[in-house]
Amino acid sequence: MTELRARLAEIADLDDVASLLAWDQQTMMPAGGAQARAEQRATLGRITHERLACDDLARLLAELEPYEQGLEAGCDEASLLRVTRRDHERARRVPSDLHTAMALAAASAIPVWVEARARSDFALLRPHLERQLELRRRYVDCFEDFSEPYDVLLADFEDGLDTAAARSALEALRRGLEPLLGELRERAGAVADDCLRGHFPIDGQRRLSKRVLGQLGFDAGSWRLDQTVHPFAANPAEGDVRITTRYDERDLASALFSAIHEFGHGLYDAHIPHAYRRSPLGRIGASMSLHESQSRLWENFVGRSPEFWQWATPVLRDALGPAAPRADAETLYRAVNKVSPSLIRVEADEVTYNLHVILRFELEQELLAGTLAVAELPEAWNARMRSDLGVDVPDDARGVLQDVHWASGAFGYFPTYALGNLVAAQLWKRLHAQLPDIGAQIADGDFAPLRAWLGENLHRHGRRQTLRETLARLTGSSALDPEPYLRYLRTKLGDVYGL
Amino acid sequence: MTELRARLAEIADLDDVASLLAWDQQTMMPAGGAQARAEQRATLGRITHERLACDDLARLLAELEPYEQGLEAGCDEASLLRVTRRDHERARRVPSDLHTAMALAAASAIPVWVEARARSDFALLRPHLERQLELRRRYVDCFEDFSEPYDVLLADFEDGLDTAAARSALEALRRGLEPLLGELRERAGAVADDCLRGHFPIDGQRRLSKRVLGQLGFDAGSWRLDQTVHPFAANPAEGDVRITTRYDERDLASALFSAIHEFGHGLYDAHIPHAYRRSPLGRIGASMSLHESQSRLWENFVGRSPEFWQWATPVLRDALGPAAPRADAETLYRAVNKVSPSLIRVEADEVTYNLHVILRFELEQELLAGTLAVAELPEAWNARMRSDLGVDVPDDARGVLQDVHWASGAFGYFPTYALGNLVAAQLWKRLHAQLPDIGAQIADGDFAPLRAWLGENLHRHGRRQTLRETLARLTGSSALDPEPYLRYLRTKLGDVYGL
Repeated sequence: MTELRARLAEIADLDDVASLLAWDQQTMMPAGGAQARAEQRATLGRITHERLACDDLARLLAELEPYEQGLEAGCDEASLLRVTRRDHERARRVPSDLHTAMALAAASAIPVWVEARARSDFALLRPHLERQLELRRRYVDCFEDFSEPYDVLLADFEDGLDTAAARSALEALRRGLEPLLGELRERAGAVADDCLRGHFPIDGQRRLSKRVLGQLGFDAGSWRLDQTVHPFAANPAEGDVRITTRYDERDLASALFSAIHEFGHGLYDAHIPHAYRRSPLGRIGASMSLHESQSRLWENFVGRSPEFWQWATPVLRDALGPAAPRADAETLYRAVNKVSPSLIRVEADEVTYNLHVILRFELEQELLAGTLAVAELPEAWNARMRSDLGVDVPDDARGVLQDVHWASGAFGYFPTYALGNLVAAQLWKRLHAQLPDIGAQIADGDFAPLRAWLGENLHRHGRRQTLRETLARLTGSSALDPEPYLRYLRTKLGDVYGL
Repeated sequence: MTELRARLAEIADLDDVASLLAWDQQTMMPAGGAQARAEQRATLGRITHERLACDDLARLLAELEPYEQGLEAGCDEASLLRVTRRDHERARRVPSDLHTAMALAAASAIPVWVEARARSDFALLRPHLERQLELRRRYVDCFEDFSEPYDVLLADFEDGLDTAAARSALEALRRGLEPLLGELRERAGAVADDCLRGHFPIDGQRRLSKRVLGQLGFDAGSWRLDQTVHPFAANPAEGDVRITTRYDERDLASALFSAIHEFGHGLYDAHIPHAYRRSPLGRIGASMSLHESQSRLWENFVGRSPEFWQWATPVLRDALGPAAPRADAETLYRAVNKVSPSLIRVEADEVTYNLHVILRFELEQELLAGTLAVAELPEAWNARMRSDLGVDVPDDARGVLQDVHWASGAFGYFPTYALGNLVAAQLWKRLHAQLPDIGAQIADGDFAPLRAWLGENLHRHGRRQTLRETLARLTGSSALDPEPYLRYLRTKLGDVYGL
């Protein structure tokens, strides 16, 4: 076990260093470093993959089998061995050449995506997407024992969930959302968000984000907040949580909600127990749905609640000074909950966000299966945007080119965004039962009980349990259940829209 | 050769990533990340050392011997094989355990040094220095074929120079400096630097540094300038040069000269040819004297020249606005050349700087030999400061605790600072002969010819030649000659002080 732990600590260090390289690239790196940085990331990825797949680790795991059988199920050592075996076996199936080819394909496709999106020129990106799909099919071919090829890709972002289960949950979600969206369309004029539009200087917005984050639990001794084109969270080491947001002078809500969203990710990272650090038990990204549940819980269940705006409205006035809107807490609360189908996923409201995700989830399955050709993707995208959201896509930049995921090869990632919403609601239901005063606490700006509950019930478990095991422990069932989420949306939007 | 190049590219990538980790730690990292970052750096160092020392590399180098013998001496492939063999053989002598112990000793001693310096408490640091010396003695014991133990440490920072040669050059330097310093002492009142003291807002100083750097050759597409406690330069990838400076509102010169100094390092890095990147031929830190010659050439030979101040004085007035001193170019030029023995090396004038370095060089040889005990170090330090510089040390914070080098284990580094001065003067003499209009060009703010000369004659050679080979190529002799440097100082200070 000592040798195993030492090897796993090195692998965890390399993963954390890779996370720093990615953070730096998006926040600090001069543009001139892009090519060399891609090579560094490929090198680091190759070394990490080799160490995870190596014969020495295979031998160690084989030697430890008798010891493992004597361990109590679910204890830390048993969990460590289980997740190590899983990561090792998955890595071992993938030849180093293919692993490197995937890293290099992403590095070369991402700048092309940037240009293609800027020029709204899908043809530029098309050969790169075709190459990515070819590589992903070769990747799938490395595996056995799956029901459908997409299972293999999904497993990289969600340990222990197959496509059928994700599909079933997301289809139930869509069935539940459609009538709600119909009702909201009829009441479209009932909510205005004018108070969020205007001119809000970035200094004031930054002050607002920092004050809100400070109250939520952002501590300058171990956190940073920076500005990037695409907000994200990174955790390049224990005690070092970095989140970013982006500012739009014409929009009061965008930077704040991005900051709160990334805070949710960051808090999960910040709460990984020291004992799980430098080990795969700290790699909580193994369930992106759980990770996303945390960002969306803070962004939506907290940040878009009426109680939050009772607390935040005076904070906002103070931070923005004369630039603050004159709206009261109730008006702001209603404005941030306005539902309105639109083109861009990351700017979507809480309801239609899920439809954006389901559309991608379904299209990427067709792409992988080959039933949809890359050349036909823009047309398919636009048709789905019309049928699912009722929106006409004016150009590919605001359509199929808006997200980086496919260019970077991350097929299988999208469903975790919407699953995160379901999981957030399942957790919220449970925590609400155990913290009946949570609303009043939020209205007082007291987020400590919520932080403590999440830390105790989810965060401190690291990667000890899968998503399903976590749901079973906290809700009594391992099922992904869309009902709590649908009920939450219906209750809140019923209140906001007077349904 | 293809396999060798692939392996060396990985090692170079790991070195560059290590440089990013160090940069990030000093500029961006929240304090909470310090412990985990130390582990990451140790892990990366261990992996790099293993790859450099590994049997596969030994086998490859052995297989390539016949091929190497057929190569033209000094061609790129021959140079690549020579430096690879050197790095490999040095790494192979050092057991991985000792390498890790040295990395961890540095990681644990540096925070203690920070505290010891803050509290001016040498006793805190003493056991760490003793441990460092013990490890360095074990390190020396890994080697054979040296004249004195210090040779082994020096070789890590200066390939191909032994202690005797460094000692001989630095003793000649001291002999030359002593009479000059005596004359300057008698004329101490002849130069005033009041114009550099006052209140100079940091925004204006930052604007000044950026304008000057922009003219020297800093380009925002591939450079960054940040603020740190200790200025430094880093080059974490091709196309990515990062320098730092520090601002003191009461001092007009400090930030500007630090920025110019680090620019000199950065330009050397920026000019490493693409073909030498991702290979040990790009590791120009193998001669720290050459590297330091570049920073000191820009800082002193350019930045403290009368011609520079002809160009820079209006720039300074414009950048600082009403906060600018009313001094003219001549007054500023004289002020930045004031000589006055003081306590702190990094704040020392051009003359006494060398005495600070020689003092450290001699004390660290005694420490390594054991003729000076760590416990007696502060007393020895203070005695030398009195005898060499005529300065009384009021406390260890401003004495033996001022530099991080020994706490970090970098014994053998100091002499390269003063040797860099000698080398800068030897290069400057040569370039002045080839660029007779350099003074007029500097006065015009035209630094392109100087950049081009350095690029062509030094930078583009990367690590193809050692310090001595470089000197032989450019000056006709491989000797470290203090005469050009002494003549440069005597001429300039004769002018400034009216000697």
